[in-house]
Amino acid sequence: MREYAPRRDRALQSLAELASEALAVSSPPNLRYLTGFTGEGLLLLSKTPVLITDRRYETEAQEETSGCEVVAADRGHLASLVEALRTQAPRRLAFESESLTYAQYLTLRDALPETELVSTTKLVENLRLRKTAPEVELIARAAAIVDGVLDAMLPALAPGPTERQVGFELNRALIEAGAEDLSFTPIVAGGPRSALPHATLSDRVLHSGDMVVLDLGALVEGYCSDITRTVMLGDPSPEFVERYRAVQAAQRAGIAAAQPGRPVAEVDQAARQVLIDAGFGEQFSHSLGHGVGLEVHEAPTLSARGDYALEVGNVFTVEPGVYFPGWGGIRLEDLFVLEETGPHRLTNACQARY
Amino acid sequence: MREYAPRRDRALQSLAELASEALAVSSPPNLRYLTGFTGEGLLLLSKTPVLITDRRYETEAQEETSGCEVVAADRGHLASLVEALRTQAPRRLAFESESLTYAQYLTLRDALPETELVSTTKLVENLRLRKTAPEVELIARAAAIVDGVLDAMLPALAPGPTERQVGFELNRALIEAGAEDLSFTPIVAGGPRSALPHATLSDRVLHSGDMVVLDLGALVEGYCSDITRTVMLGDPSPEFVERYRAVQAAQRAGIAAAQPGRPVAEVDQAARQVLIDAGFGEQFSHSLGHGVGLEVHEAPTLSARGDYALEVGNVFTVEPGVYFPGWGGIRLEDLFVLEETGPHRLTNACQARY
Repeated sequence: MREYAPRRDRALQSLAELASEALAVSSPPNLRYLTGFTGEGLLLLSKTPVLITDRRYETEAQEETSGCEVVAADRGHLASLVEALRTQAPRRLAFESESLTYAQYLTLRDALPETELVSTTKLVENLRLRKTAPEVELIARAAAIVDGVLDAMLPALAPGPTERQVGFELNRALIEAGAEDLSFTPIVAGGPRSALPHATLSDRVLHSGDMVVLDLGALVEGYCSDITRTVMLGDPSPEFVERYRAVQAAQRAGIAAAQPGRPVAEVDQAARQVLIDAGFGEQFSHSLGHGVGLEVHEAPTLSARGDYALEVGNVFTVEPGVYFPGWGGIRLEDLFVLEETGPHRLTNACQARY
Repeated sequence: MREYAPRRDRALQSLAELASEALAVSSPPNLRYLTGFTGEGLLLLSKTPVLITDRRYETEAQEETSGCEVVAADRGHLASLVEALRTQAPRRLAFESESLTYAQYLTLRDALPETELVSTTKLVENLRLRKTAPEVELIARAAAIVDGVLDAMLPALAPGPTERQVGFELNRALIEAGAEDLSFTPIVAGGPRSALPHATLSDRVLHSGDMVVLDLGALVEGYCSDITRTVMLGDPSPEFVERYRAVQAAQRAGIAAAQPGRPVAEVDQAARQVLIDAGFGEQFSHSLGHGVGLEVHEAPTLSARGDYALEVGNVFTVEPGVYFPGWGGIRLEDLFVLEETGPHRLTNACQARY
């Protein structure tokens, strides 16, 4: 994928609208998006971009990037950035206010009294919202990996192992299936622990009669996938079936609503209303979904508070869930890329039939 | 470990020296250090502390913490913090300038016009520098896990597998040995790739005649360990042996210098001088070591630029290395806790004999 120079050009266009000649890129995924560099560092984005790292990553910086001067010094990234800025001397320097810390801001302000600092948010993130075909291809590969792992493991899931053991098997299977890493530590939450939407792996043994929430993702060339399934070990109670079907219906409603041009708050509401009508509105305690790309949680967030209208090229999850403390939880999550004709499903692993 | 309330008291004492009544804690390890909470959130540290999270982590927040009011709302952590601050109305609010982003700073400033914001650095980090006995015990347990894994795996390491496969075996073995997680993705770098101090796992097959750098760590109740070994697959060349012994000698010199009261720059220099004298000064391209605790890299950094004098209770690595692009690299890393009598070694896995 050699899209880096055009991406930098687009970012420079956004910068020009802010009357700034340069942007200090401090967000790691934005750095990778604009350069391909996988190490730690900063980017001084300008007509003559400078990639700043240290000697630990010098080789990677040279091999992975092109079109940027590489500075790999031992004095600290911010000190190297100041050095490069003294050379380029932009009148107005934009910075990423959501990743630059206040302490780093003070350092830049004090070191560059002649430069006006311009606080920006989401300048590069907005470019990342719409994925290109090569990006979707990588996400689809990451999705195919979680699909394959779940298709192989879910039908065989049975009482006996601990959550941690199942999590570790998922980990092993994802790497063996070609993931360069996990996009996050898997969630395997059984019985009452499934009521924790972000449970960590515990040593609790999975029992017959447990519902089990499995939430996992793979990483392919830096791009993430994300999927959740809920299964019942043993015979599902009528109560479980009722709640499971309500979550399924909510997911279907969310998917149907996720059309180009549709405000994310309406998409969230479409799914939420199904659960409210079923009497589970209070138990759906998070937003409907999130964007996925170089980060496993990125824009757009599908939530009641969002003010974004979906666009072709967005990649996002649709993942309603209901959580009953003491009883358990049910969540279903799939990954989609938005096309002209609507959401195209990227995850297809077996849905349990209840 | 129930040290949380006394830790908060010590942090409040540091705050009083800044004439501030409250501290907004945004650094995740600082949050965990002061409360025990393992989820995502913020802490308003004051005489009546408020732990701020969201409904995803509500159960964990209630179970893991005591002595704090818990707020678990859906409006966003910073908005909840503003809410809590409007109630407590401190005249001066300290914040952690190295973890609060500039955007978050602007939000606080604009929402709280009556409150003076006081930028702080390392207020809680300074408390974390000196580990207590229960903390050292957890780090020692994490160190014993990497020791056991290396003692079992290193003698059997042979040509054939890829770096990624070996990395995965390390991962599996660490979890099976009781690590709750890894403290970082292991490094397994063979042949010329060992010249990259922070190589990622690749699909390169390990060959006879490769030197292999293995760098790994385990996590126990949030506390990290960190260790590196370098081994030669097959017969070591005289060149390898010379360089290996130089790194060993540098490590011994660094350990000997790491005494209570000794400035970290002198400790770094003691090891560095050995490599300079051996003609490898240029090839030792990073600092000598780093603190280890709730973070795998934390204070104190053992580097030429550091201005800290070692204290009893510090836990840190001593890890000289030499890196020759095209040839390979050699790094040896061990973990120590500083006692009155000098550094006590926490990692003891087999050192290869060359």
